[in-house]
Amino acid sequence: MLQNKSIYLFTFFLFISKILLPQSEVEKNIQILFKKSLTEGKSYEWLDHLSNKIGGRLSGSLNSQRAIEWSKNELENLGLDKVYLQPVMVPKWIRGTFEYANIETSPGNTINVPVCALGGSISTPLGGLRANVIEVKTFDELFEKKNEIEGKIVFFNRAMRADLVNTFEAYSEAVNQRLQGAEIAARFGAVGVVVRSLNLKLDDQPHTGTMSYGNLPLSKRIPAASISTNGAELLSSMLSLNKNLKFYLKQNCKNLPDVKSYNVIGEIKGIEFPNEIMIVGAHLDSWDLGDGAHDDGAGVVQSMEVPRLLKKINYKPKRTLRIVLFINEENGQRGAIKYSQESKIKNENHVFAIESDAGGFTPKGFSVDSNDDKFKIISNWSKYFKPYFVHYFEKGGSGADISYLKNEENVLVGFRPDSQRYFDYHHSENDVFSSVNKRELELGAASIVSLIYLVDYFKL
Amino acid sequence: MLQNKSIYLFTFFLFISKILLPQSEVEKNIQILFKKSLTEGKSYEWLDHLSNKIGGRLSGSLNSQRAIEWSKNELENLGLDKVYLQPVMVPKWIRGTFEYANIETSPGNTINVPVCALGGSISTPLGGLRANVIEVKTFDELFEKKNEIEGKIVFFNRAMRADLVNTFEAYSEAVNQRLQGAEIAARFGAVGVVVRSLNLKLDDQPHTGTMSYGNLPLSKRIPAASISTNGAELLSSMLSLNKNLKFYLKQNCKNLPDVKSYNVIGEIKGIEFPNEIMIVGAHLDSWDLGDGAHDDGAGVVQSMEVPRLLKKINYKPKRTLRIVLFINEENGQRGAIKYSQESKIKNENHVFAIESDAGGFTPKGFSVDSNDDKFKIISNWSKYFKPYFVHYFEKGGSGADISYLKNEENVLVGFRPDSQRYFDYHHSENDVFSSVNKRELELGAASIVSLIYLVDYFKL
Repeated sequence: MLQNKSIYLFTFFLFISKILLPQSEVEKNIQILFKKSLTEGKSYEWLDHLSNKIGGRLSGSLNSQRAIEWSKNELENLGLDKVYLQPVMVPKWIRGTFEYANIETSPGNTINVPVCALGGSISTPLGGLRANVIEVKTFDELFEKKNEIEGKIVFFNRAMRADLVNTFEAYSEAVNQRLQGAEIAARFGAVGVVVRSLNLKLDDQPHTGTMSYGNLPLSKRIPAASISTNGAELLSSMLSLNKNLKFYLKQNCKNLPDVKSYNVIGEIKGIEFPNEIMIVGAHLDSWDLGDGAHDDGAGVVQSMEVPRLLKKINYKPKRTLRIVLFINEENGQRGAIKYSQESKIKNENHVFAIESDAGGFTPKGFSVDSNDDKFKIISNWSKYFKPYFVHYFEKGGSGADISYLKNEENVLVGFRPDSQRYFDYHHSENDVFSSVNKRELELGAASIVSLIYLVDYFKL
Repeated sequence: MLQNKSIYLFTFFLFISKILLPQSEVEKNIQILFKKSLTEGKSYEWLDHLSNKIGGRLSGSLNSQRAIEWSKNELENLGLDKVYLQPVMVPKWIRGTFEYANIETSPGNTINVPVCALGGSISTPLGGLRANVIEVKTFDELFEKKNEIEGKIVFFNRAMRADLVNTFEAYSEAVNQRLQGAEIAARFGAVGVVVRSLNLKLDDQPHTGTMSYGNLPLSKRIPAASISTNGAELLSSMLSLNKNLKFYLKQNCKNLPDVKSYNVIGEIKGIEFPNEIMIVGAHLDSWDLGDGAHDDGAGVVQSMEVPRLLKKINYKPKRTLRIVLFINEENGQRGAIKYSQESKIKNENHVFAIESDAGGFTPKGFSVDSNDDKFKIISNWSKYFKPYFVHYFEKGGSGADISYLKNEENVLVGFRPDSQRYFDYHHSENDVFSSVNKRELELGAASIVSLIYLVDYFKL
């Protein structure tokens, strides 16, 4: 680590760079926002509560209701103009009491492998499911082998690509196995599917996530589970030695009727243009294996920090600012759909929305879904973020929940933190509070509130 | 996490951006360097060995000798033109067998606090040291209180500033307490110093690091220890309640005579300009509390990756490329001094050097110590790094070891990864292999080799 001489040189350069340039009001306010987030921030304390006192909060669960009540209460404590719940019916899926799998390499010889049910999957028969396995990497390969599938378990084993620097890109290339694998395999007569966990590490934690049966009738649905990456490697090796091995899977998850839940909404009325609405949002629900600290506890507490930090610079938004904590992003997006439907009915004008749903990591920048003129304006603001190493300003998608608000005029933004570690945790028991670094989380909150401040101050 | 619709949009944009622009040879080679580092990299496996099979490797220790032999052997396996050891005498300090401290809040009532000896410190008397404490935050405050110091332990308790986004800046503002605290306190008659650990978290791990007695005679030297941040907070609270409390410190560390050690050097002879030397370097020694995975195991294995990755693109450097693994950066920089002395004697021409000594985190960019013209050339290469989110190209210091090679013509570069988590680990038992993320380490190696490739390809 750099010592003595280099340190003095380094400090000298910093000193010089600081005295030469007078700060504008905007630069000064952004500096205060970052400083306050790092020194008087509440995001980390909130995340500790949400993760450790509430925990995983799958849509429709008791924990999700606790998270709704807690976040409503915390937003009320911030003294916003209005805090309210928006009712919405959400799916209720429960994991059940057991999840178990083994590979029977030869009669009587079994090796246990870590699995978990995919969200939305049906259970296996009570005594479990035992069948031969067919391994595929793509849907094309599945189609080629369609005559061999009947009565078997389809094992989707396409790994996320390690060479893609943006790990979300690797995820988007691999996620169709999980989303549609069961539906497609069932159409060819498979009795179950096992999907390689969507993470980039070789480890022993299975990663869950939503799956869909499309329009398959109830009678045609087959159980779907995720297998850890090490488990997937093992199963693949064993199959190369003995393609007639049996795989045993047992899980008793269940889909229950929809239940009532809520989006949590807090609002500061704009002092000049109250009918122009800006949103900062994240999703309050999470998967159930971890405590959802990165996905999306981080986004929730960063969103809650926005009004709190704006007060620290005594800034009253000209436009109406809404904090929207969406329910049910993970397995239905019912909260987002409901919010957009209600806003259409009320003829609301959403001029801007930003979503944080990519983990509580060091901020890299923003992905902007807008027309070219507005993108240009936002890109020009990158100069304000340079001191904080926030550099990524590109056109692209925004976020699952706010995307329903898209129109020709408005600007939707996805907050983009560093993505290298995200899939180590995502949807698994690894996604816990201790995997979040306080400073990284706080820098994210500061980046988000700074962009909102710029949008409101300069107008887009 | 973004789902369905957003993912498809996202993939679409990526697809479009990829087909529109034809790649230059340089762009293509850099892409391969990143790809190979992420998919066929050896840095993580090497770091596992260095951290877990060798471990902490303080200068002069048996482990440091093991690290020297191992890295020499690994460099030889890469088929370089030359691999050799450069002998140098290094200080040998040993931590001893015990380190212990408590706060005596009232006679007979004590609370243990976590401490560790600072590197280079003398031991306490065998039975320990028991004295009143005077707390200061700055040397100015120490001078003001100079009449109260006699016979006391000086407690330096200035925390690293959380509001500085670059954590190295916060470190550079706080490190003088550790480096010079004992020397200055001793001049005022203190009997020992306890220094708040240089990390940004409140936790229970003391962080060690080098300290100096300057030109104090042996008889005037006093023991110096680091106290964990939680311990520092506790001691400060207790002092506010009772400024007459006693602090008890016991440690039996020791300075031994200098011993022979080595820089490890590997070389590929330049095919066009063999007398122009480019260096990639890091330091092989580490502190002893953890296994030195971030400081500076990461830099060592990233440096070793450079010739390996250049072979993957069949690139033969025009200039001579040296991998220099310096010994004794942490407590003496004798390896760096020796290397620069030898190179002066041989009249060697070092045109470029890059050092990686800031942890194995996601690469942010480079700090460049050069004249303006050369800095401008390097800045213009930032376009090649954009796809990898490597964006930081600024003038500034380089690194402790290579800084001795500075002249008017050459270019010295410090590799700069994200700094948010570094001081959670730095110089403490937290600096272990499991705190390094494979992809982050590999992206760093790819960034470093890409810059070297550009330097050699375009000439600076």
